[in-house]
Amino acid sequence: MAHIQLPEGLPGIRGAMAFRPATARPLNDLVEILLHAPNSLTPAERELIATYVSSENDCYYCQTIHGAVAAASLNGDEALVKQVKHDFHNAAISEKLKALLVIAGKVQRGGKHVTTEDVAAARTHGATDIEIHDTVLIAAAFCMFNRYVDGLATTQPRDEAMYRERGKWIARDGYVNVSKEYLPAEAAR
Amino acid sequence: MAHIQLPEGLPGIRGAMAFRPATARPLNDLVEILLHAPNSLTPAERELIATYVSSENDCYYCQTIHGAVAAASLNGDEALVKQVKHDFHNAAISEKLKALLVIAGKVQRGGKHVTTEDVAAARTHGATDIEIHDTVLIAAAFCMFNRYVDGLATTQPRDEAMYRERGKWIARDGYVNVSKEYLPAEAAR
Repeated sequence: MAHIQLPEGLPGIRGAMAFRPATARPLNDLVEILLHAPNSLTPAERELIATYVSSENDCYYCQTIHGAVAAASLNGDEALVKQVKHDFHNAAISEKLKALLVIAGKVQRGGKHVTTEDVAAARTHGATDIEIHDTVLIAAAFCMFNRYVDGLATTQPRDEAMYRERGKWIARDGYVNVSKEYLPAEAAR
Repeated sequence: MAHIQLPEGLPGIRGAMAFRPATARPLNDLVEILLHAPNSLTPAERELIATYVSSENDCYYCQTIHGAVAAASLNGDEALVKQVKHDFHNAAISEKLKALLVIAGKVQRGGKHVTTEDVAAARTHGATDIEIHDTVLIAAAFCMFNRYVDGLATTQPRDEAMYRERGKWIARDGYVNVSKEYLPAEAAR
């Protein structure tokens, strides 16, 4: 049971957002820009960063829904998503993404862990300043989202099909559009 | 030196926001609603929660600027802000705020640390569901802001007078208004 009285039938962050639409709007805007809007990092790369950080923070809801969005952006390759969560150094991803995941993992433990060498390594593999910035902010933002979802003890059903379907929907339409399902018009826009 | 090329002369999160106005807008909207907009928790109470979490995360910029905003909302009582950071259980604050700071401290370590008993204690001292929600989200959001500011190795000058002046300005005008100083009009609104 959640720590506060959240609307029924809305798992994870959705219940918390429906409870407090005023904060849901900037949270949706932020994740839309970071993960779904046009960017030199692909949606799959950004979703993998979010999934990895959520896995490190042990947040079931976030790692499962963002893992599902990542898989939907990767022609359904759920095995790759799992591999990135558990051992990204040996996953079939670019050296650039591996270097960005190193930075994301440092941010997850605390911003001061990121070193000049971590950033130089990412640059060697072609990462731009905006890509490094966005990696730091995605990792930081998921340290927020994970704590929000778990700190309220939201409902997090173990129903893989639900996450898989929703992941496809988010990959196609984005976060702001999908949030219209449960947010009042003025909050969802 | 920051890990990426940030605009000169803008310390802490301001340089990062000026570098990436698209993400600055939802970040400013979020902090405006959480800390400055009308709420049954006073601005000082909410700023003290943000300051305490930033102190636990050892983020100099965030704990100093939010400590300054808190002090500005408390007739300049910087000693109280310091006491809350280092030993809030013995500070001259309400039992309700102490119970909310316990929850915030748990969220800082990870969302799953918050217990039913922590939440029940806050309710005993009069906290509402929205106040508990906002405490969790403020604490979670500062786990993001602190990592964003430190993860990019932003400039964080040790100039207390600067933070004190800016704290008064933010306490009076709020975050979105103050951000207009360094954000393009379409991002700052």
